[in-house]
Order: sequence, then structure tokens, then C-alpha cells
Amino acid sequence: MRVHSTTFAISTHGKGTYEITDRIATAVAESSIKSGTLTVFVRHTSCSLTIMENADPTARRDLEQFFEHLVPEDTPYFEHTLEGGDDSTSHIRSVLTRSSEVIPIVQGRMQLGTWQGIFLFEHRRAPHRREVIVTVIGEP
Amino acid sequence: MRVHSTTFAISTHGKGTYEITDRIATAVAESSIKSGTLTVFVRHTSCSLTIMENADPTARRDLEQFFEHLVPEDTPYFEHTLEGGDDSTSHIRSVLTRSSEVIPIVQGRMQLGTWQGIFLFEHRRAPHRREVIVTVIGEP
Amino acid sequence: MRVHSTTFAISTHGKGTYEITDRIATAVAESSIKSGTLTVFVRHTSCSLTIMENADPTARRDLEQFFEHLVPEDTPYFEHTLEGGDDSTSHIRSVLTRSSEVIPIVQGRMQLGTWQGIFLFEHRRAPHRREVIVTVIGEP
Repeated sequence: MRVHSTTFAISTHGKGTYEITDRIATAVAESSIKSGTLTVFVRHTSCSLTIMENADPTARRDLEQFFEHLVPEDTPYFEHTLEGGDDSTSHIRSVLTRSSEVIPIVQGRMQLGTWQGIFLFEHRRAPHRREVIVTVIGEP
Repeated sequence: MRVHSTTFAISTHGKGTYEITDRIATAVAESSIKSGTLTVFVRHTSCSLTIMENADPTARRDLEQFFEHLVPEDTPYFEHTLEGGDDSTSHIRSVLTRSSEVIPIVQGRMQLGTWQGIFLFEHRRAPHRREVIVTVIGEP
Repeated sequence: MRVHSTTFAISTHGKGTYEITDRIATAVAESSIKSGTLTVFVRHTSCSLTIMENADPTARRDLEQFFEHLVPEDTPYFEHTLEGGDDSTSHIRSVLTRSSEVIPIVQGRMQLGTWQGIFLFEHRRAPHRREVIVTVIGEP
């Protein structure tokens, strides 16, 4: 049994979903772990993770639009607005999605289904540098 | 330390919650792992996982009805509708619930609370065959 | 590789978010595990976990208010109301947040970002005693 840990940064340029599947696959390959799990974790409270349909861009557009309706910016009763109308909105959208995601590894490959991609979901309008940690645990 | 991995399939016949607690308990028993965690993972983007009240069927009915209201089929602004009015709806309901769930194991048993059951949450109207992976990591 | 498991209880006095970051940090320190992951798990279906902005109390107040609007108590179509108007509401709010959360450990410390705190999110009006399990897996 072994633990392999990698951190990478991703630069975001406004709200939306950014695919990080390849960077995570690279971390798994570098770990030489053949059987176990990987954990993806974002170190932020105004962006999050989601596993989503990775083929048709309209699927992600619908998801992003849905969140605009579900947790609107500038909601009148929000008090936490020091950083703008996307402040509480960003935190709440993060709570409704995920900070961590765990994916099994079998025969050295993460076991995503055909249409599953891993995305960082940026909830801030302004550009940000986001840190993601990948921890692989298992047998070489 | 050891890793034990099992895959099983479940046939769904339309939208709703399908309990998979027993199949996961079986995987834990087969692993002979006494102390650690198990990870449940669904390999799909139009069904998901949830831990939910397992005793009274009305609790799950309310949950299912709530999602009908929260992410309605045939939402006018959805563009991703190639597979029908439940297409984007299914993906978004999956994002709002979970693709992976991690549960502790102590003395060879998963530590669900009295009222916790693990359910596959099917978001598609048509029948589907769904794959679930259970990964148990820990000490025998 | 090693597994370290701890259970603690927290008394809640009505709906809201209760920070448990310090208790989890203590469990990590006691484990003597330097590299790996920790899993937090709640054994209930009417409270949940969330990682949230930990500095400004208004951020959490907005989150709590948002859930009051998103899943209102006494929703007319709810059938599961035996324990009151917060019964189905509590289960659904739990489904929309998390039962488990996994956080990486590097050099003996959990890798939360600067503004990330771990909270138990109580959805019941009445006081409750809640059980949380922390499982640390990794290398000493």
C-alpha cells in the first residue's frame, strides 16, 4: 500500500466549468498505483468540483444556466456581499456541488464511465488561481 | 492494508430511488476488511447516489417529488435535449446529489446510522443498466 | 499504511451550522498519520456536512437562509411529516449537501484552504445528539 499526493493549480477566467480529467489521469499514472482510489479536493469555498457529461458542451451550458437561476447573484436577502454580488452566491453554489470527489482505480486506470469528466466549477466572475490536490491510495 | 474492488450492475425501470445497501454490505463482507473505508461510485452522469432515510417510503417519495420541482423536465432554456426532456434534467440532478460516497468500516461492518440506506437515484424515464463500483480499503 | 478511527458526538440546539474543524484536526493529530486522507461521516439523515467559508458569520447566515427558501418547511405536497414540518425538509437538505467529506493529509496536516471550515449542518429544530466518525488512512 502506498500514498501518492500531487497538487496542481488551474487559472480560471470567470464563471464556468473547466475540465481537469487529464491532469488527474496524469497524477494516477505517475503514482504507479494499480488498485485503490483517488481523491480530488479543491482548497476553496467559491469554486467546487463536479463530475459531468463531457461530450456535448450544451450539457454544461445548461448546468451553468441552471445554477444562475437556482442561486442568483445579487439575491436581495444576502448579507455577505463584501466581495460583490457573486460572493454568497459562490459559496452556496460550492455547498450544492462538491469539495471532494473519490474515484476508484482498477488496473492502473481511474474507472470513470464513458461520459464522465471531472470539472472544476468556478463560481467567481474575476480570474482566480485555484489549487487542486489529488491523493492516490492503493497497491502498486 | 488491502484493497478489495467489486463491480455490480443494477437494472432500473424508470425514475426513482433503488436501495443498494445490501449489495454494498455483501462487498464489505467479502473483502474481509475489518477497519477502513468503502467507496461507492456510479459510472454515469444521468443517475447518482444518495444516502437517505430507509424506513418510510413517503420520505423517498417526497425527495423524488422535490427534484421534479427543483429541476423540471422540459425546462424551456435547456439546449441539451437530444435524448428527450429528461436529458439535461438528469445530468443536473446528478450534479446536485453524488457520484461517490465514502462510508467508514469498523469491526468489519459499515457504520451507517440506524436510518441510513444507500440508494441509486435514477433520473431517466427509460430502463437502464447501471454500473456501481465498491472499493474497500483497510486492514483485515 | 495504517487506519485510525475516532467517533465523537456533538449536541445541536436547533437548525444551523456548527463548526467541527478543530475536533477533526485533533483526530488527525492523534492518528500520527503524515500522508493520506481523512473521511468525515455523519450517521444521520436529518443533518449533514458541508465545507464552508469559516471567517464571516454572514456567509453562513446566507447559506442557512438560502436553504430555508430552497426547501421550505411545511411544503404542501410533502407526505412524510410525522415528526413535524421539518421532517422531509431535513432529509432533502441532507441529500443536497453531504454525508461524507474526504480531505487530504500532507506532512501530518489536513490540507484545508485558508477559508475552509468543516461544519455539521443541523436541519432539525429540536436539540439532537449527532455522531460523527473520522477515519484517517495513510502512512505514519
